[in-house]
Amino acid sequence: MTRPLTEEKVFKDPVHNYIHVQDTVIWRLINTPEFQRLRRIRQLGTTYLTFHGAEHSRFSHSLGVYEITRRIISQFERAGYGDWIPEERLVTLCAALLHDLGHGPFSHSIEEAFEMNHEDWTCRIIQEDTAITEILREVSPDFPQKVASVICKTYEHDIVVNLVSSPLDADRMDYLLRDAYYTGVNYGTIDIDRILRVLRPYNGRVVVKESGMHAIEDYLMSRYQMYWQVYFHPVTRSSEIILRQIFRRAKELYTNGYPFRFMIEPLSDLFEDEISVRQYLLLDEALVQTAFMQWTREKDELLSDLCNRFIHRRLYKYVEMESLDMETIDEIRRCFREAGLHPEYDLEIDFPTDLPYDVFRPGEGFHGKQILLLDRQERLREISEVSDIVRSISGIHRGRYHLYVPQDKLMPLLPHLPGNVRAIFERL
Amino acid sequence: MTRPLTEEKVFKDPVHNYIHVQDTVIWRLINTPEFQRLRRIRQLGTTYLTFHGAEHSRFSHSLGVYEITRRIISQFERAGYGDWIPEERLVTLCAALLHDLGHGPFSHSIEEAFEMNHEDWTCRIIQEDTAITEILREVSPDFPQKVASVICKTYEHDIVVNLVSSPLDADRMDYLLRDAYYTGVNYGTIDIDRILRVLRPYNGRVVVKESGMHAIEDYLMSRYQMYWQVYFHPVTRSSEIILRQIFRRAKELYTNGYPFRFMIEPLSDLFEDEISVRQYLLLDEALVQTAFMQWTREKDELLSDLCNRFIHRRLYKYVEMESLDMETIDEIRRCFREAGLHPEYDLEIDFPTDLPYDVFRPGEGFHGKQILLLDRQERLREISEVSDIVRSISGIHRGRYHLYVPQDKLMPLLPHLPGNVRAIFERL
Amino acid sequence: MTRPLTEEKVFKDPVHNYIHVQDTVIWRLINTPEFQRLRRIRQLGTTYLTFHGAEHSRFSHSLGVYEITRRIISQFERAGYGDWIPEERLVTLCAALLHDLGHGPFSHSIEEAFEMNHEDWTCRIIQEDTAITEILREVSPDFPQKVASVICKTYEHDIVVNLVSSPLDADRMDYLLRDAYYTGVNYGTIDIDRILRVLRPYNGRVVVKESGMHAIEDYLMSRYQMYWQVYFHPVTRSSEIILRQIFRRAKELYTNGYPFRFMIEPLSDLFEDEISVRQYLLLDEALVQTAFMQWTREKDELLSDLCNRFIHRRLYKYVEMESLDMETIDEIRRCFREAGLHPEYDLEIDFPTDLPYDVFRPGEGFHGKQILLLDRQERLREISEVSDIVRSISGIHRGRYHLYVPQDKLMPLLPHLPGNVRAIFERL
Amino acid sequence: MTRPLTEEKVFKDPVHNYIHVQDTVIWRLINTPEFQRLRRIRQLGTTYLTFHGAEHSRFSHSLGVYEITRRIISQFERAGYGDWIPEERLVTLCAALLHDLGHGPFSHSIEEAFEMNHEDWTCRIIQEDTAITEILREVSPDFPQKVASVICKTYEHDIVVNLVSSPLDADRMDYLLRDAYYTGVNYGTIDIDRILRVLRPYNGRVVVKESGMHAIEDYLMSRYQMYWQVYFHPVTRSSEIILRQIFRRAKELYTNGYPFRFMIEPLSDLFEDEISVRQYLLLDEALVQTAFMQWTREKDELLSDLCNRFIHRRLYKYVEMESLDMETIDEIRRCFREAGLHPEYDLEIDFPTDLPYDVFRPGEGFHGKQILLLDRQERLREISEVSDIVRSISGIHRGRYHLYVPQDKLMPLLPHLPGNVRAIFERL
Repeated sequence: MTRPLTEEKVFKDPVHNYIHVQDTVIWRLINTPEFQRLRRIRQLGTTYLTFHGAEHSRFSHSLGVYEITRRIISQFERAGYGDWIPEERLVTLCAALLHDLGHGPFSHSIEEAFEMNHEDWTCRIIQEDTAITEILREVSPDFPQKVASVICKTYEHDIVVNLVSSPLDADRMDYLLRDAYYTGVNYGTIDIDRILRVLRPYNGRVVVKESGMHAIEDYLMSRYQMYWQVYFHPVTRSSEIILRQIFRRAKELYTNGYPFRFMIEPLSDLFEDEISVRQYLLLDEALVQTAFMQWTREKDELLSDLCNRFIHRRLYKYVEMESLDMETIDEIRRCFREAGLHPEYDLEIDFPTDLPYDVFRPGEGFHGKQILLLDRQERLREISEVSDIVRSISGIHRGRYHLYVPQDKLMPLLPHLPGNVRAIFERL
Repeated sequence: MTRPLTEEKVFKDPVHNYIHVQDTVIWRLINTPEFQRLRRIRQLGTTYLTFHGAEHSRFSHSLGVYEITRRIISQFERAGYGDWIPEERLVTLCAALLHDLGHGPFSHSIEEAFEMNHEDWTCRIIQEDTAITEILREVSPDFPQKVASVICKTYEHDIVVNLVSSPLDADRMDYLLRDAYYTGVNYGTIDIDRILRVLRPYNGRVVVKESGMHAIEDYLMSRYQMYWQVYFHPVTRSSEIILRQIFRRAKELYTNGYPFRFMIEPLSDLFEDEISVRQYLLLDEALVQTAFMQWTREKDELLSDLCNRFIHRRLYKYVEMESLDMETIDEIRRCFREAGLHPEYDLEIDFPTDLPYDVFRPGEGFHGKQILLLDRQERLREISEVSDIVRSISGIHRGRYHLYVPQDKLMPLLPHLPGNVRAIFERL
Repeated sequence: MTRPLTEEKVFKDPVHNYIHVQDTVIWRLINTPEFQRLRRIRQLGTTYLTFHGAEHSRFSHSLGVYEITRRIISQFERAGYGDWIPEERLVTLCAALLHDLGHGPFSHSIEEAFEMNHEDWTCRIIQEDTAITEILREVSPDFPQKVASVICKTYEHDIVVNLVSSPLDADRMDYLLRDAYYTGVNYGTIDIDRILRVLRPYNGRVVVKESGMHAIEDYLMSRYQMYWQVYFHPVTRSSEIILRQIFRRAKELYTNGYPFRFMIEPLSDLFEDEISVRQYLLLDEALVQTAFMQWTREKDELLSDLCNRFIHRRLYKYVEMESLDMETIDEIRRCFREAGLHPEYDLEIDFPTDLPYDVFRPGEGFHGKQILLLDRQERLREISEVSDIVRSISGIHRGRYHLYVPQDKLMPLLPHLPGNVRAIFERL
Repeated sequence: MTRPLTEEKVFKDPVHNYIHVQDTVIWRLINTPEFQRLRRIRQLGTTYLTFHGAEHSRFSHSLGVYEITRRIISQFERAGYGDWIPEERLVTLCAALLHDLGHGPFSHSIEEAFEMNHEDWTCRIIQEDTAITEILREVSPDFPQKVASVICKTYEHDIVVNLVSSPLDADRMDYLLRDAYYTGVNYGTIDIDRILRVLRPYNGRVVVKESGMHAIEDYLMSRYQMYWQVYFHPVTRSSEIILRQIFRRAKELYTNGYPFRFMIEPLSDLFEDEISVRQYLLLDEALVQTAFMQWTREKDELLSDLCNRFIHRRLYKYVEMESLDMETIDEIRRCFREAGLHPEYDLEIDFPTDLPYDVFRPGEGFHGKQILLLDRQERLREISEVSDIVRSISGIHRGRYHLYVPQDKLMPLLPHLPGNVRAIFERL
């Protein structure tokens, strides 16, 4: 079972050219229903409503993460680095391949709406009697648990955990490259060959040879640009807001016994917070979109309006504000309510934020969230100590408040709103 | 309504970098529910099961066709060619944008299974009181009919029809480039700038300046390669076969009054061959996949098995045969039936064929399926008269018979089959 | 003479795909001996000794600068911006095309060695009876002077000067893209289509619409990376040092009446500081390399050694120092001299520095070195006021001292040097 | 000496991303004066006068050939193919790296003009006491001779010879990719990863697994396109003609004792047909261009005119003829002579021809010029037996006669030529 394939198999991939599969286990894992499900879950959720090319799935991304990990390990083995444990190859590859297995449809929104966590689901799917579990168990009885523990960061060998999740892991490298490729923006084009060449296992971590500092600077700047250009794009945020509101409204209605024209099993389980692994695996974006499409014809106006907006891309618009206090928000809400709007659904405040790279703070010790440079004297230094540009971008807290509203509903009411509130939305 | 936008709008596109929208009509058409529906229909149907990157939609492709057409026209106008009619710009752009509007989910398979034609649907959607019709009607009352007639090739000005459908049209150019980009194969990389530069409107047709012959040769060779590498890939054919069988089985069951655990409105309309435009527009790939997913749990074993195969990618395998006679087929079918298999579902014979370019045959006159070169003396010649390479590939009839079967079901029965039939499938 | 070409001519270009020539004047300028000379002068001087792909010439780059300028102007004209003066098109294009005409072989090094300035030479070649002058004069008698004044930044219309030289000019955009393409590094890949879309002529300057801020951030970060990865690469600096030393030594010998085995006319004129335009135009990198090749066999050991190093790429090595005081330098020089080395040739201290973008300092007013953003309220703001990332990188003063020495000559002497000096060079 | 480098060295390369050097011998060979000389010889001779980007050198190409060979071998070793002899790795890599060492400046033209052969020079440089010889000799005394015999195709192991020269060798693959990259045409973009995956050593040859047939078809079509678009481009042919004429005229003058204003050692040796290896190595394109530049001022009008044409790119123009008989040629020559032209220099007839792939002819046996497919039953078949497209293009003999003349000299004389000759050149 742990034997290599008699002949290597390849997948043609636009980002890595070919994905090379050399192990029977990997090949069989890819062919399970659980892994094939990832074809029906988009890598970037609703981003395709902003960048129409971004229709790629978590299936593609998962293969990519596997491939980068395979290349890193094969580099470690060629170089014969003492800090790498060759026996850990298979568990690392399986964890890399499966790390996104638990993602649900439109993952971030559904997680927020139902307070779930995809990592927990990943670990459950790996361990709870699925086709995945069965294949892993053939390697050894405790292998499913081992793979899961790498993903949960509790595995015994730090180097394996660090390879699979760290600020320079295969996950981040693949998504930068892949998301740039499919959206068509060229901010994510990092020199991955160069980065792979400068990685080294060292004292239970993956560190970077000092000569590779520029490649890492470039990688962090690409991340920074992708966050602001793609991941935090206001149109994407708007579609995520509507998605969350649909989930919220549907659950509210379900809880109140509203008679849905269309309801389907895994969704009702989800609304009851009692969803089994088997039911969870039936959830995919096809099902969610089909439900939304059907709900465009529900009697509940809020739900049908929100579903119409999502399916036909009539999103909320936004105004940007440099600052915003609670008082103003309350005032807006009050005015909205008086004007006949539902402030819980017709107003959403968003403050996107992400630090492209968290700097080391003295006294904290080295932890997994840092990128460490290894110099010729075998000294480790956190990258922002050495790189001015990383230090510069680490501290940047950009971000303004965005107020999202249904422009078409708000506009006719605008003349009736008090002057200060009207002033805010006149820029719509 | 026919006014230009005050400020050009752009879509970021991985293939053309930017899609430029300059007309209010175009902008509004893109934002209709009918056009947004194309986001939920993949450009290459089931090809993503062979090339995992090929998850792009007809929405992306339609924007691409529009953009190439826009660029061709703007080149014609810059050059001031007398054979181009500037007043036809808008109708041409609308037809280019909308030409794929009528595609259903997994279009080729559904068309075969239900004897429909996407072009008819396109024309109905354009003319039968949709949001599309309404916008076009604002240009002029007969504008919807005009746009439809361009797509149906009955429009009064040949040059417009030729621009939208011909062996060198924007449709073919965009799909070669786009399908190559998303699958990751590099056979489709044509020099589109060069091709656009050598096109000329001439006597009601788009012809090619003789100096551009090499660029066209390269384009035809790319087409040839894409057909054999991507479009006719046996794994894709296998998934299409299963898809068609699911549609066939489901309709058979529906007609016989089988009580489906899961049935949804537009599907039942489809099975009854009485589907309205409004219902047709509810059909998308999300809905089809959701139905298939639900049907994996149907009582009918054939249907549930086929749906399981499609959803979890357990496709039929094939053996290749250089020749095949009716007698052998009958023999195989008989043996399959005796062994307890259903030859109508468990055996499919496929013979892919396509001529990359149809040569002119003397006496036929010039018609829309030819590529004409215009030399300096303003003589027209069909390209294969001039290009040896085009003449060479035009005649190539490649193609072998492929027999597709469910390997897992067939293998245990193999020893019980007669020797000659067994010999065929032993290579599986 | 100012007429357009009857048919547009194109050059196939790897960076811009095609260079479009639409004016007779431009076509004729490209075909002059003066412009063709740029084929024999590399764009990046000695960088090909570090990045072997960087063998591209100033001819390619000049065509690229022309093409970007043409596209900017054509965008200005399409948009109908009031601040652009359509009559200035031709003078702008000529200045863009010719702005590098005066570069000599290995330009930066020769300029430093002989205290010349390529911009002065450009203006002289444009105005002093060359084939260039003749063609320009056919446009109007004062046209040569006009073109030259754009390059010298004294032209009457600021917008033209600003288009040709500013921190966002076509020159910088082309070289980033081109140098990245030919070296193979992927740091210089800027989204030029996006940048061109957000430029606007405004009050005699080219400014950036605020919505384009991210594209400009990306451009400035690319510049930053290209400076440190390519332009300031220590191996390139080393080859430039040797080049300068060859020029210095040869002039020294020439001045002292040394009998060269090989001497050729434009070089002797150069050494006598009395070089005419006609002689200057005979200088190219072929000639310089031929002289160096011949000089590898000169009797003067210093000259022949330096030429051997350059031709056969046996460059100086370097040690890096974070700080360096005059005293230490004097000490090293003294030791070198005592050990029999020539400190004037055998030691070179380098401190590369460049600010990727100079920030506006309050009270200075807006000047040509700044990038200004124009917001919707038509307010201008200097970019670093708005962009955290630009502000961050603007202040970065990286740079360490590099001490370059001939390792092979120094190593045998190392044991005889005093301890503190030896310690410095032991790291070689 | 045959030891690996302690740390792999890399060259950044635009085509292969990185060139990996793992052996001390290879590293040292690259740093010899003989190999560095290849930086001063362009890969595509005068093609840069047609495609301005094609300024790349044989140095870049030689590194590329080495890299592809290294990757093929490392694939053979990973797969553990029995037909590959691991001990032959180093000799193969050296031969791949050095195979172009003997190319002179503007190689094809100089070879034709002086009846030399670069392969002979390569073998001499490898074996006649150069820095190259010395390094190779350290491996073993007969190693220089071994490397040379691989290049001369007399080496004992056929598989090594076949790897270095065959219709699918690393040389051809690198130049297709590299020439496409630098010219900017996109015809040469082959899927090299795919090709490398399907190569197999088998019975002393490199053969192709049958599953790779499409990749090879694509490669041969790319070759076909590159030949007609780039290598046989009429402008390039024109510049080669002028180059050959310069060499011919200069030698003629030299032989007749003409007193050159400028003459330099290796050239005079060349003219006397007595050039030593040491002198030959002084020849590079810088020297040739410098001589031509100086000769623009020679008294001999023919020579100075030809040099002016070459340096300032005032090339001959051509007329195309479908057929041409000796009688017509004689007639033209006579007329030219009578009109005061020099037909030996003012008229050149060119008939470019190349077969993209030579088909196997029955009865010839398999030889090194064929591409063989290996099917699952281990049968070998020549590719054109299996592939229709290869068979189709193999037979194509395109090619027309081109008559090249100095248009500027001929035009004023045209009215005085007899009608039939005038008719030919009126199309100029």
